[in-house]
Amino acid sequence: MAAATRDPGLSKLQFAPFSSALDVGFWHELTQKKLNEYRLDEAPKDIKGYYYNGDSAGLPARLTLEFSAFDMSAPTPAHCCPAVGTLYNTNTLESFKTADKKLLLEQAADEIWESIKSGAALENPVLLNKFLLLTFADLKKYHFYYWFCYPALCLPESIPLIQGPVGLDQRFSPKQIQALERAYDDLCQTERVTALPYFLIKYDENVVLVSLLKHYSDFFQDQRTKITIGVYDPCNLAQYPGWPLRNFLVLAAHRWSSSFQFVEVLCFRDRTMQGARDVTHSIVFEVKLPEMAFSPDCPKAVGWEKNQKGGMGPRMVNLSECMDPKRLAESSVDLNLKLMCWRLVPTLDLDKVVSVKCLLLGAGTLGCNVARTLMGWGVRHITFVDNAKISYSNPVRQPLYEFEDCLGGGKPKALAAADRLQKIFPGVNARGFNMSIPMPGHPVNFSSVTLEQARRDVEQLEQLIESHDVIFLLMDTRESRWLPAVIAASKRKLVINAALGFDTFVVMRHGLKKPKHQGAGDLCPSHPVVSADILGSSLFANIPGYKLGCYFCNDVVAPGDSTRDRTLDQQCTVSRPGLAMIAGALAVELMVSVLQHPEGGYAIASSSDDRMNEPPTSLGLVPHQVLDQYEQEGFNFLTKVFNSSHSFLEDLTGLTLLHQETQAAEIWDMSDDETV
Amino acid sequence: MAAATRDPGLSKLQFAPFSSALDVGFWHELTQKKLNEYRLDEAPKDIKGYYYNGDSAGLPARLTLEFSAFDMSAPTPAHCCPAVGTLYNTNTLESFKTADKKLLLEQAADEIWESIKSGAALENPVLLNKFLLLTFADLKKYHFYYWFCYPALCLPESIPLIQGPVGLDQRFSPKQIQALERAYDDLCQTERVTALPYFLIKYDENVVLVSLLKHYSDFFQDQRTKITIGVYDPCNLAQYPGWPLRNFLVLAAHRWSSSFQFVEVLCFRDRTMQGARDVTHSIVFEVKLPEMAFSPDCPKAVGWEKNQKGGMGPRMVNLSECMDPKRLAESSVDLNLKLMCWRLVPTLDLDKVVSVKCLLLGAGTLGCNVARTLMGWGVRHITFVDNAKISYSNPVRQPLYEFEDCLGGGKPKALAAADRLQKIFPGVNARGFNMSIPMPGHPVNFSSVTLEQARRDVEQLEQLIESHDVIFLLMDTRESRWLPAVIAASKRKLVINAALGFDTFVVMRHGLKKPKHQGAGDLCPSHPVVSADILGSSLFANIPGYKLGCYFCNDVVAPGDSTRDRTLDQQCTVSRPGLAMIAGALAVELMVSVLQHPEGGYAIASSSDDRMNEPPTSLGLVPHQVLDQYEQEGFNFLTKVFNSSHSFLEDLTGLTLLHQETQAAEIWDMSDDETV
Repeated sequence: MAAATRDPGLSKLQFAPFSSALDVGFWHELTQKKLNEYRLDEAPKDIKGYYYNGDSAGLPARLTLEFSAFDMSAPTPAHCCPAVGTLYNTNTLESFKTADKKLLLEQAADEIWESIKSGAALENPVLLNKFLLLTFADLKKYHFYYWFCYPALCLPESIPLIQGPVGLDQRFSPKQIQALERAYDDLCQTERVTALPYFLIKYDENVVLVSLLKHYSDFFQDQRTKITIGVYDPCNLAQYPGWPLRNFLVLAAHRWSSSFQFVEVLCFRDRTMQGARDVTHSIVFEVKLPEMAFSPDCPKAVGWEKNQKGGMGPRMVNLSECMDPKRLAESSVDLNLKLMCWRLVPTLDLDKVVSVKCLLLGAGTLGCNVARTLMGWGVRHITFVDNAKISYSNPVRQPLYEFEDCLGGGKPKALAAADRLQKIFPGVNARGFNMSIPMPGHPVNFSSVTLEQARRDVEQLEQLIESHDVIFLLMDTRESRWLPAVIAASKRKLVINAALGFDTFVVMRHGLKKPKHQGAGDLCPSHPVVSADILGSSLFANIPGYKLGCYFCNDVVAPGDSTRDRTLDQQCTVSRPGLAMIAGALAVELMVSVLQHPEGGYAIASSSDDRMNEPPTSLGLVPHQVLDQYEQEGFNFLTKVFNSSHSFLEDLTGLTLLHQETQAAEIWDMSDDETV
Repeated sequence: MAAATRDPGLSKLQFAPFSSALDVGFWHELTQKKLNEYRLDEAPKDIKGYYYNGDSAGLPARLTLEFSAFDMSAPTPAHCCPAVGTLYNTNTLESFKTADKKLLLEQAADEIWESIKSGAALENPVLLNKFLLLTFADLKKYHFYYWFCYPALCLPESIPLIQGPVGLDQRFSPKQIQALERAYDDLCQTERVTALPYFLIKYDENVVLVSLLKHYSDFFQDQRTKITIGVYDPCNLAQYPGWPLRNFLVLAAHRWSSSFQFVEVLCFRDRTMQGARDVTHSIVFEVKLPEMAFSPDCPKAVGWEKNQKGGMGPRMVNLSECMDPKRLAESSVDLNLKLMCWRLVPTLDLDKVVSVKCLLLGAGTLGCNVARTLMGWGVRHITFVDNAKISYSNPVRQPLYEFEDCLGGGKPKALAAADRLQKIFPGVNARGFNMSIPMPGHPVNFSSVTLEQARRDVEQLEQLIESHDVIFLLMDTRESRWLPAVIAASKRKLVINAALGFDTFVVMRHGLKKPKHQGAGDLCPSHPVVSADILGSSLFANIPGYKLGCYFCNDVVAPGDSTRDRTLDQQCTVSRPGLAMIAGALAVELMVSVLQHPEGGYAIASSSDDRMNEPPTSLGLVPHQVLDQYEQEGFNFLTKVFNSSHSFLEDLTGLTLLHQETQAAEIWDMSDDETV
């Protein structure tokens, strides 16, 4: 034991610290966890990293965290050694800055110390591989602030190097090296682990044995003053061991310094060189163990990582620079929505909104504003129908168009609107259909050409309504709303209707008829008849969705051609400019509220408004029989409507009779002098 | 009189009709008249055209209407002959189509006939030059539909050509021609007219005399069976006179056929050829006058112009194709606004809105929506202030930005917003200032650099507020509203303030302090003190504008740094996406309503809300003394505010005292057991 007499002051053991290697995937996964799971929860979270002992020379010893870091049951990569960590993700940069890092380190060190004292670390040496990660994720900017810590308990004094370090090949014969490899591999296989972070070694010229820490008493019973221990070493340097050895040496000192004064350490490094396994660059050295067997108190600990400037401080990674901009846009758009769920509306079911397919009939003032609000809500599937072109007066009121869109006669609105949505947010699935909607009182039978066109338009509209979930009626005439209202009612699609006056507007949902298989029979609830249970006035405080009417239910005149003979101020939507934004926004908010209701379009319309408690007047609930006719006769019925004046629909729905009765009543009132 | 024996059936007089020549200027002026003056008025309007008798060969005879057509006192162009017309501008294409053109023509013919019978046409021959113009202006598309009519009374039979037509140089010697020119010019000069439409001629070999119609009896007293009349002839054709001759011949037949059987007609044509005057292409012919002296009834009339296809029908001109697109955009944008004045709000003073200069502090969700609504109202002067860059989450909620604007770290919002407004409407005067607004509790004294920057920012903000009329507070923090609120109050600028919660929002105007010269004294009405007249509860139903408070008046905590230590959902404006559109639109509508009030920002805040009648609580009207300090100390005062925590402003305004008193009151309440 000549080495024991060397001056311990001359050479002390030093350790190469870990570099934290936080993969982009880790930050993406943290973003998802923060948005969807942690939200405002700042409680510590278990995470998992790993390190490798086979790197090429020149690479720093890295503790790597990947996207899988949050899944504690995820497998550790082959030949890697796991490390368990604690994530402290703060809600604010202030909390991040003011976090008590000394305390966090002490707590972690204490846990390690306890596991050493209790023997738990012998049973499960990964307990020595503990790390901390303090983070703040600025998800608005995709800036991630972090500070990594790999706590290392400090030995009471510096450790004198008795011998070495030398390369393994200077210490072991090729035969011994081969035996070591085989013994290590066998134990890994037996234990079903990817790597052994810490292990015990015994060897002579012919045999090399490797054992788990927990078997130390049996394994070392024939040793005298010196034992050999192995550490899976992420470090590459020929003169220094990596960081993990530190806590292992503390364990060794605490557990074994009373029995053995000296420890030979194998820093096991295991790489592949030119296709062949090579462990010869592992280093071996001998140290004198300090006496720690009887210290009850946790030693002081170190481990917070230096930042890029070499000082003590956090690091920041700006992921916005390395992300695909379109993907970045998608995440960012989701962000504001998900933030709603954090605190304000935790029960908000965003998927119901984001996944809804919206058909916007009309891409004018209302259509543009509805589309904008839908985008704000993260709706990804938006389809426009319009047959107009963009005129010069449009862009200042229709927020999807610009001056350039008006040149050369103007682009078709539906197509330009869809294009604009893509420019606003490339992740949207927006389409435009430049087509007319056949209307009552706008004849289609002038020629077979126009009749064919009308048939195609009706079919196209039926298909579009079929393939969407919510139908927005946003046209500028009353009659153009008629056909889609009928088709959508027949297909049980939620209809949201908005219409503007000068300083008034209507935003409403149409009633949603009960599904056909429920046997609604002759009753047409989306166009309710005056049935007994409805006339019971108490029911009017809360009307179930299937008993709500539609835009036309309260009308006493059937829709006809309202565009004929209109003056300029009647042709244009003359309204206070702010109105369309208000109505458009409310229409979407109404849709969102309905979608959030467990019964969706069948949700009860409840109101605290007293007027709802009044019994209906006969004008309030005029029966319509349109839906049955449409479902029976289809396009033939529709052509009659398109080609006829008001009278056809009014005859069909009983309005003609109502008018006659009203007139008769008026005559009576005025001509008779009854005394009441 | 050899010619008198010619077969009248062989050659009958025919006339070349007018072509209407409606200048682009005419349509522009009609557009302006329609928008600003006529609006929905369909009553006939007097208009004025002219025709010329000096055109080069090949040009049709044109009746020209220019922008000046609507000004009956506008001078007729030199050497041109005026024509007076009636404009029938319909409100709808339907009215245009169904207008009773036969009736209109008959009415005009009747007027001409009456002027002939009464002799009025002799006094003022322009009465024979009557025309009609039926129009419909589709101002949305800049399509102008029109049908022109130059009524010509029909002679009872076709008129036999006795002689000619021949060129004037075949009939007159050069000496006679020269004499004719001189006589015509002299009469024009005497009468101070640009042209004589109809005149009388007498001549022999040496002398040519020209006279007005009204002098016919003196002038023709020595004539026997034949007289010579002259007509200012817009026609170029060698064989045919132009249209104006028709009514003149009817006049001649009615007036003179009983005295003279034959009329020699000079169709006076007066052009400049190679720099020299030339009337030799005038034509001369002789006709036999039909007997009309004793017919009392108006003859039938013709005159509706054929369209381009040669059939009877209206014409259409599409001006959108020949207008400068930017000018077209400007007119179109005005259109919708002016339509409001037609019927719905005739008293609306659009100039007050259009000319207002708006400063938008904040170009985020609210700023973008406010700017959009301002554009809809035709506001031309919009300035943005913001210091943020566009991030990926912005475009779906901030309707002035697109995905492209986010790339490379994002464009500065203020500049990008201004650029976008120009793209939407090139006529806007939009600017952006990428600058920070100094805030209470955000210290500026760390270094002389930041202090200087703060001083420049304050000066810049003061200048911006000075040069605008309405200041919109649209930022995302409370404290950033403080400085502009103070400066704007000091400068008596109208402040509109909007702020968002999750599903709540505030839109308010700040009180407008009385002008300084009115001697407001120590009273700070924009931040009202609890004075006697305010505490009188009856006053609370209607609070005058100068007694209204500001955003901070009801606060019990002074604004400080609210951005520090905020979680992500507190940093972002987490609100229902439709809310910003609603609040932004309401903010602008509020501004418009205030501007329309005769007292502007001093308008009384009236409300039918009963709560307004309740007396104020002490928290409702906390006195602020900030304005006086700002006006006295300026930037020095501001630096104290920026650098201090809440306490400085709270001390200054008495809030500290209020807090202490409140706490004292609470302690009293809890610690004492008084019996009430």
